[in-house]
Amino acid sequence: MRLALGLQYDGAAFHGWQRQPDGNTVQDALERALAQFAGGAVPTVCAGRTDAGVHATFQVVHIDPPAARPLTAWVRGVNRFLPEAAAVRWAIEVPPAFHARFGATSRRYDYWLLNEPVRSPLLARRTGWLARPLAVAPMREAAALLVGRHDFSAFRSAECQAASPVRDLRELAIERFGSLVRLRFVANAFLHHMVRNLVGTLVYVGLGRRPPQWAAELLQGRDRSAAAPTFAAAGLYLTGVEYDAAFGLPAPPDEIAPACGERA
Amino acid sequence: MRLALGLQYDGAAFHGWQRQPDGNTVQDALERALAQFAGGAVPTVCAGRTDAGVHATFQVVHIDPPAARPLTAWVRGVNRFLPEAAAVRWAIEVPPAFHARFGATSRRYDYWLLNEPVRSPLLARRTGWLARPLAVAPMREAAALLVGRHDFSAFRSAECQAASPVRDLRELAIERFGSLVRLRFVANAFLHHMVRNLVGTLVYVGLGRRPPQWAAELLQGRDRSAAAPTFAAAGLYLTGVEYDAAFGLPAPPDEIAPACGERA
Repeated sequence: MRLALGLQYDGAAFHGWQRQPDGNTVQDALERALAQFAGGAVPTVCAGRTDAGVHATFQVVHIDPPAARPLTAWVRGVNRFLPEAAAVRWAIEVPPAFHARFGATSRRYDYWLLNEPVRSPLLARRTGWLARPLAVAPMREAAALLVGRHDFSAFRSAECQAASPVRDLRELAIERFGSLVRLRFVANAFLHHMVRNLVGTLVYVGLGRRPPQWAAELLQGRDRSAAAPTFAAAGLYLTGVEYDAAFGLPAPPDEIAPACGERA
Repeated sequence: MRLALGLQYDGAAFHGWQRQPDGNTVQDALERALAQFAGGAVPTVCAGRTDAGVHATFQVVHIDPPAARPLTAWVRGVNRFLPEAAAVRWAIEVPPAFHARFGATSRRYDYWLLNEPVRSPLLARRTGWLARPLAVAPMREAAALLVGRHDFSAFRSAECQAASPVRDLRELAIERFGSLVRLRFVANAFLHHMVRNLVGTLVYVGLGRRPPQWAAELLQGRDRSAAAPTFAAAGLYLTGVEYDAAFGLPAPPDEIAPACGERA
């Protein structure tokens, strides 16, 4: 039997997704909780291996449990063993052909930026922060140049292990909600640090340090060192993963707001 | 010279407002930061002495600084010495007659409840949580019976040091935003644990464990042990303090949403 689990977590509490010797990752915490609940080892495979500090409101994980339990038990029972900073939100049975990572047809990441002069304690580990005002219009111009199937080498970290630097960026939408700016990225898949590198570059454009056209030049040049620095992990959320509709996974929630923001 | 400061903090990081020997309170952190910035002791007086775990988006503090500095320096300079979980949001000069505590004509507290079957990691220390569905209509009926000038002995903790149990509860508004429920309390002042005790009682009514009329009976009975238990601190925010308009303090932000909520 194979199950798909919907997982949420506060990334500030973990050293990223991927299992590590220190044991303080999301995967470590989830596998410990699953083992306690199921009474045996339960390996996990996730849709998006998030970095340290990166949150998830819609991470998808698949497991092959050693024993059958009611679906609600895989939510409530496992949550009893998970730390406060992580929770299973839903569980459904899927056919053995389902694969959380290789079956995902697209991922959605939202980056939330607090854009006001003074930092906000309740948003500290929940948003990136930029004191100087961002102009959203030129950021949208640059975003339009980035959407599509491109070689994203300029936005890929040196440690990226992907076989190809080509990704299909299907959506890059920028919205302002008062002092909060949300950058929404949808792609078939993402390279390592790709979202945070794109955010860094779009912020340079929003501050007027570079023109929108710079985004096209960076794509063309394929040179990571020419682009802006990687932006902070704090504002990044994995908010959606899509699969073949036949698997019947729940849809991700439509609108998600970060911590205690003052909405104008 | 007297200054009024607007302070925000994440209450989960502190043992409440009030100075303590362990040094881990908001007042301790603020006075340490002020001393480092000003080069000498700067005692503080606040509008609302919040408990451990209680947040503030609009706490008001007054100080008599030992040295004159530009107003912007009291924001940026002090924030450099404050931990991530607290920040000065604004500073204005006020006449010596201004007093953050005794001059406040009303306080506003918002209590945020997450009302859905599964807990949410990103809202863990930012909201109270109730798995069973709350009916808001009877809660509003009960709220209407609580508004006004009453003896709130039934909602006052045993440690409360106030001279009188009479308070003027001017507003008790309950709003649902998808799976989040906000209870907004405005009063001249509050007794110790008064908001959390009122939340506990309103939750009993919302779950159908007691009828709305119970609220009036509790007021009448003035017996703390007859009312519901104190609700969790996690969902409570000090979101506004009012003074004579002549002091010219900034208005509190109108709408504040807690951490990563899924808004329906």
